Amino acid sequence: MTPLPLLRLMPGRDRRVKFGHPWIFSNEIRMTPEARALPPGTPVGIEGDDGVGHGVWQFNPHSLIAARILDRRRDTAPDTAWFRDRLAAALALRERLGVPRFCRLAHAEADGLPGLVVDRFDDVLAVQANTAGMDAALPLIVEALRDLLAPRAVLLRNDSAVRRLEGLAEETRLAMGEEAVARVEEGGLRFEVDLLSGQKTGWFFDQRENRARVASLARGAWVLDAFCHTGGFGLLAAKAGAASVTLLDRSQPALDLALTSAEANGLEGVSALRGDAMDVMERLIGEGRRFGVVVADPPAFAKSRKDIPAALRAYGRLARLSASLVEPGGFLFIASCSHHAEPGAFFEAVGTGVFRARRTGRILWTGGAGPDHPVHPMLPESAYLKAQLFQLD
Amino acid sequence: MTPLPLLRLMPGRDRRVKFGHPWIFSNEIRMTPEARALPPGTPVGIEGDDGVGHGVWQFNPHSLIAARILDRRRDTAPDTAWFRDRLAAALALRERLGVPRFCRLAHAEADGLPGLVVDRFDDVLAVQANTAGMDAALPLIVEALRDLLAPRAVLLRNDSAVRRLEGLAEETRLAMGEEAVARVEEGGLRFEVDLLSGQKTGWFFDQRENRARVASLARGAWVLDAFCHTGGFGLLAAKAGAASVTLLDRSQPALDLALTSAEANGLEGVSALRGDAMDVMERLIGEGRRFGVVVADPPAFAKSRKDIPAALRAYGRLARLSASLVEPGGFLFIASCSHHAEPGAFFEAVGTGVFRARRTGRILWTGGAGPDHPVHPMLPESAYLKAQLFQLD
Repeated sequence: MTPLPLLRLMPGRDRRVKFGHPWIFSNEIRMTPEARALPPGTPVGIEGDDGVGHGVWQFNPHSLIAARILDRRRDTAPDTAWFRDRLAAALALRERLGVPRFCRLAHAEADGLPGLVVDRFDDVLAVQANTAGMDAALPLIVEALRDLLAPRAVLLRNDSAVRRLEGLAEETRLAMGEEAVARVEEGGLRFEVDLLSGQKTGWFFDQRENRARVASLARGAWVLDAFCHTGGFGLLAAKAGAASVTLLDRSQPALDLALTSAEANGLEGVSALRGDAMDVMERLIGEGRRFGVVVADPPAFAKSRKDIPAALRAYGRLARLSASLVEPGGFLFIASCSHHAEPGAFFEAVGTGVFRARRTGRILWTGGAGPDHPVHPMLPESAYLKAQLFQLD
Repeated sequence: MTPLPLLRLMPGRDRRVKFGHPWIFSNEIRMTPEARALPPGTPVGIEGDDGVGHGVWQFNPHSLIAARILDRRRDTAPDTAWFRDRLAAALALRERLGVPRFCRLAHAEADGLPGLVVDRFDDVLAVQANTAGMDAALPLIVEALRDLLAPRAVLLRNDSAVRRLEGLAEETRLAMGEEAVARVEEGGLRFEVDLLSGQKTGWFFDQRENRARVASLARGAWVLDAFCHTGGFGLLAAKAGAASVTLLDRSQPALDLALTSAEANGLEGVSALRGDAMDVMERLIGEGRRFGVVVADPPAFAKSRKDIPAALRAYGRLARLSASLVEPGGFLFIASCSHHAEPGAFFEAVGTGVFRARRTGRILWTGGAGPDHPVHPMLPESAYLKAQLFQLD
């Protein structure tokens, strides 16, 4: 085994590493000419200024986050077997948790695979490599996935904007197999998913448990699914016995896909409204429409730090509008997937919006993504999904 | 209908009330001699300095929280029918949520019944009136509960220390019926509960969903239930197929009750260790004992604000000890029911403790009490129960 290049931390810069943090910033590493010359994504050993070893990391000399940990042990190399072990542990955890075969199989740092996301659609896998290290390791990762799950297809969905921070191009291509259409089975329904052109990897597994939670309240209710995308919340509510489901989205293709899924699953009482969700909600309020369950699950309003104030205002407005549409005794589910909107600020904006709708009520549940989206203990801010369920008087 | 006494807010002190807050502090009310002379707990009307009505409140001239809202409507009186309506709404919500008949039926402010807690053991009810208003209204409340649920017994469990803040004596007595022993059915097990002498109302319904969550991971595992009290977590883990369950508590009567429940439910492999939980955990670590699932659910470490720093240190120590006892790939469930320990501070103490045990891993779930313990939107700090589930490497 060829020894890995060995990089050294700047004096006194080993504190966070010793504390279990999975990242090293570029100003914490001694950037020798040899270090700078390493190809982005190279696996390296890291040691402190005191010569104490800190294990094996993926290194990118051109990124603010210069190194991401692979293994605290020094004597490892990230070969196919190493990736297979990590992915097998992630798979075993999901099986132990009772998570279905339609789930997030690997969730980056929290699964010991920094920057790597694998979504599983049974025997079709969608992979995102968001760092130079994982991008360089893709051949090993695909081989490890093949060994582990014998998938019918592996799609590389490397079109996330965060790749730019690592100097990586955006690309979407099949790494294995010929199939880019997958299905999701959830709550007794089947959904077709287009892995090549859909948002993210095509399905938002993070809300799976929340969709079930909302559906459990939907029997006999009029349900509004605002920002419905491909209709997960609404269709599961229909399946659970909703009296009617109104899907609302600005994208006609998304609505078409949702209505096709509704029909394919034999669901009745599902209709669609196309338009800017909040404008349509204003109109529905004016028309006196009320619903027993309102779901407001918008795309991220804050794409960057500077968007935060405007995003919080938008979440407040969304909460006001959606609360206004809930009938007395009904339920509001509202979520934010904005990484940049902190939980406290988001929940405060929601509370204020509900108040501005002149509604009282109670918070029944506060939470986030399901357990197939674990959180690294040193990266609590990576818990991007925040949601609350209210009953309103 | 005799009009209620009408109290007036100080000038400019209507802001929080208008914002939907359920409390008025004593310095916000115009404390006339007539107001001061009102018996603690009297229902009153409240209006702003501008003469705008703010509905009906329970008033206590001797408490820092001088008034707690009953109803935003002015033209209501808190009679038996009013309490029946509120309790019926709380009951209907639990039924809609699929919460069993063994649950918290009314959770104070969040259910529109400030200071009133009702725990339901099917046909036996345990009531806590924690304010002068609810104490004075107990005859109406008991009558309303009788109308609604025809219970076999209603026990007043008025021994909470918070009653002192309201000038109330502590007392425990039967208000109806003759039965002070109840049973809890949970997850297919039956537990006997002594409503007269047990902690709180005898059963901690707030952890019901969390006990199910932990039990779902317990099959085949060695389980340690630290601070087990009457053994809810441990026995449900045994029922779910744990290889063995070790109950740990300082109270011999609690352990005896847990072991009796284990036997009565035909559970095998359940044993008990008596002692200070953290001292015993130190010893188990020294002996090299490891468990697939460790539960650390202690009583509140912070009984008041001044206890917070010491409590956070204790939570950190508890996290370190419990993490040390988890075998590689195993699970740690850790909780705090300290009202005074804020979620962020508690979770940080836990994260630090896990790190100090030199363990890495992932947070699978962060949450609190079940939905039969709703939270008032203006009292987010009332979400006292905080818990995390980790998998450790």
